[in-house]
Amino acid sequence: MTIAEEISRDEQFMAEAFKEAEKALARDEVPIGAVVVIRGQVVARAHNLTEALSDPTAHAEMQVITAATSSLGGKYLGDATLYVTVEPCPMCAAALYWAQLGRLVYAAGDPKRGYTLVTPNLLHPKTEVSYGILAPRASKMMKAFFHKKR
Amino acid sequence: MTIAEEISRDEQFMAEAFKEAEKALARDEVPIGAVVVIRGQVVARAHNLTEALSDPTAHAEMQVITAATSSLGGKYLGDATLYVTVEPCPMCAAALYWAQLGRLVYAAGDPKRGYTLVTPNLLHPKTEVSYGILAPRASKMMKAFFHKKR
Repeated sequence: MTIAEEISRDEQFMAEAFKEAEKALARDEVPIGAVVVIRGQVVARAHNLTEALSDPTAHAEMQVITAATSSLGGKYLGDATLYVTVEPCPMCAAALYWAQLGRLVYAAGDPKRGYTLVTPNLLHPKTEVSYGILAPRASKMMKAFFHKKR
Repeated sequence: MTIAEEISRDEQFMAEAFKEAEKALARDEVPIGAVVVIRGQVVARAHNLTEALSDPTAHAEMQVITAATSSLGGKYLGDATLYVTVEPCPMCAAALYWAQLGRLVYAAGDPKRGYTLVTPNLLHPKTEVSYGILAPRASKMMKAFFHKKR
C-alpha cells in the first residue's frame, strides 16, 4: 500500500468514527466516536455515553474496546487499529495498554486531558500511533459543543 | 470518630472487598475485589471479570464505579469511599479521576502496574488516599494465584 492509499484508508475509517461522534452529539453527549478495524473490516463501533449511562467510564474508546473484545472472544487487540475522533484520556490510553492495541489513530489532540500530557508510555510499547487525520473537523465539533454548553 | 474506630471501620469494609476478591478467585480470575461505601453503607460491590467477559477493561474498580454511578444516577462519587484489595492500575486511577472519588483505600501496593508508578496525579486532586489496610492478606492472595498459574 502506498502512503497515499494508507492516508485515504485512514480517512475512510476516521469518517466512520465521526459517524459515531455525530450520534453522541445527537444525544447531547460530548461528541466523540470510535471504531475498531481488523484487516480492513470495522468490527466494533461506539460513541461516548457518559450522560446516558450516568457512567464516567463510558467513553467511546472504553465502549468500543469492550464491544470488540467481547465479540471477538479475547482480551487482546494486537491485530486491530482503533480510530477515535479525539486523543484518548489517560483512562482510555491505559485501557488500550491492557488490550495491547496494534495501532491507534486519533484526529484532534486534547490539550486538557489527553494522555500525552501525562506520558505517552500509558500505551503499550508495541502500539503504533498516528494523529492529525481530519483533526480540524474534530476540533470544530468539540469547540461548538462546549461553546453551546457555556 | 477516633483513629482506632476509623481503622476498624476501614478493616470492616476492606473485608467486604475481600469477599469480592474470593468470588473472583473462585472463577479463576485475578483475585481483586472492590466495594463503594457512602455514609457507612455499601452501595456497590464487584470483582475482576476480565476472563469471564473477555474484556481487558473489566477490572474490579471499573465494574464497581459503573455499578455505583449507574445505581446512584450520577457520574460523580465525591461522597464515596472505594475500597479495593490491590492498588489500582493507571486505567482505574484515571477512571476514579473522572468520578471525582472522595476517598480511595487500597490494601496491597502493586509493584508492577500500580498507578503510583506512573504518577499519583492520575487521581483527582481532591481524592484522599489510604493504603496498607489488610495488605498482607491481599499480597498473599495475589502471589498464590500467580504461583499456581506458572
